[in-house]
Amino acid sequence: MAQNIYDDNTFFAGYSALPRSVHGLDGAPEWPALRNLLPPIAGARLLDLGCGMGWFCRWAAEQGAANVLGIDLSTNMLERARSMDNFGVISYQQADLDALRLSPGSFNLVFSSLAFHYLTDLDRLWREVATALAPGGRLVFSVEHPMFTAPVAPAGDGWLKLADDRNAWPIDSYLLEGPRTRIWLTPGVVKQHRTMSTYINTLVRCGFEILELVEWGPTDAELAARPELRDERDRPTFMLVNTRKA
Amino acid sequence: MAQNIYDDNTFFAGYSALPRSVHGLDGAPEWPALRNLLPPIAGARLLDLGCGMGWFCRWAAEQGAANVLGIDLSTNMLERARSMDNFGVISYQQADLDALRLSPGSFNLVFSSLAFHYLTDLDRLWREVATALAPGGRLVFSVEHPMFTAPVAPAGDGWLKLADDRNAWPIDSYLLEGPRTRIWLTPGVVKQHRTMSTYINTLVRCGFEILELVEWGPTDAELAARPELRDERDRPTFMLVNTRKA
Repeated sequence: MAQNIYDDNTFFAGYSALPRSVHGLDGAPEWPALRNLLPPIAGARLLDLGCGMGWFCRWAAEQGAANVLGIDLSTNMLERARSMDNFGVISYQQADLDALRLSPGSFNLVFSSLAFHYLTDLDRLWREVATALAPGGRLVFSVEHPMFTAPVAPAGDGWLKLADDRNAWPIDSYLLEGPRTRIWLTPGVVKQHRTMSTYINTLVRCGFEILELVEWGPTDAELAARPELRDERDRPTFMLVNTRKA
Repeated sequence: MAQNIYDDNTFFAGYSALPRSVHGLDGAPEWPALRNLLPPIAGARLLDLGCGMGWFCRWAAEQGAANVLGIDLSTNMLERARSMDNFGVISYQQADLDALRLSPGSFNLVFSSLAFHYLTDLDRLWREVATALAPGGRLVFSVEHPMFTAPVAPAGDGWLKLADDRNAWPIDSYLLEGPRTRIWLTPGVVKQHRTMSTYINTLVRCGFEILELVEWGPTDAELAARPELRDERDRPTFMLVNTRKA
């Protein structure tokens, strides 16, 4: 079972103040790129794994999804999600994704944003997801990039200041997979580091075809609007993955 | 056209002294992992892109390949290849891989070891390879890992010494693809940096299904035999890719 850090009230207070919590999808810089990977939403049956405050569920409902199931481990997150407009087609369920069981053939799209890197057993979950998808169904998700999760003990914020005012991100222990404990909003946040190849090979083994990989960085227009995103081009924080049930 | 650094005689003298030049495949630490990705060789028609001194061509001939075509840009490399046993089924051809044309359906396996990161137009070459493969044909290759090629101006040998006697590899400019000029055996060696996602997405776009990705690091036994390989676990040098014509 993954750490339930979102029910730590200090963490949750910090998380609630982030742009992606206050502004929803529009507050997440990687959202336009993630949205580009999605199949048509209208009429689809959707599952959102690690739905958090339900921003994606509500967006999908607005796009005309037939029904949307949002699942999360956190009581705090689900309370927040349920407090907002439901659009009639959304249901929420509290569950541990490391033990979740799903009904076969019940979804056209399984979506997940920045949740899988908390989980300890993706092999089990993704086999369950493959079974839960209808033929041709899609799994589209984001995780923290393996280069971001790799370092065992990053110094400070992890960045190294180079002489010429550029930044570099020191990588270590990349091939040594497993838990990484981080200070993020609070100390003691546990994430699971996996390599790029483990993500890809696990997907293939669980029955998915790789359609596209996005290592997210800002477009020129996004960078002009938000110069602080420059470091993302040095070392991306997010990896977006587009797959189809094989 | 890629830089023909292997016909720089200073470079070639240095390259000729490397374990993988002296001992062939057994001198390349990643070879056992790369070999594991290969389909059955006996009876197959093989193409080796960037065949160098022909070590793989000769190995494939020994395994019973029906015929083996080795292609390289370098006169030095092909002279060395032709000077060694030919086994009767190998032919060599001098060509620029950035302009190579191949006959449709002529191969069961296209192999390439550490050559593609010198090329400027993989999109064109891989479409040519997809056409040149028979149905179900395979493209199996290694390249320098994108984390290895990324830094624009690595200091010294690129490694950063951490306080606790461990090493870290500072990454910068990862999303900024293009040429990187390196000191390797001689100054001025030009390689092309591409992201992991560009490799994957280009393969998919060119008609390949991703079967497996290996970010190479030593096994425990290999590390015990060669402790200097420890850094590979911090930041792999090699990426191995197993694909099938879709």
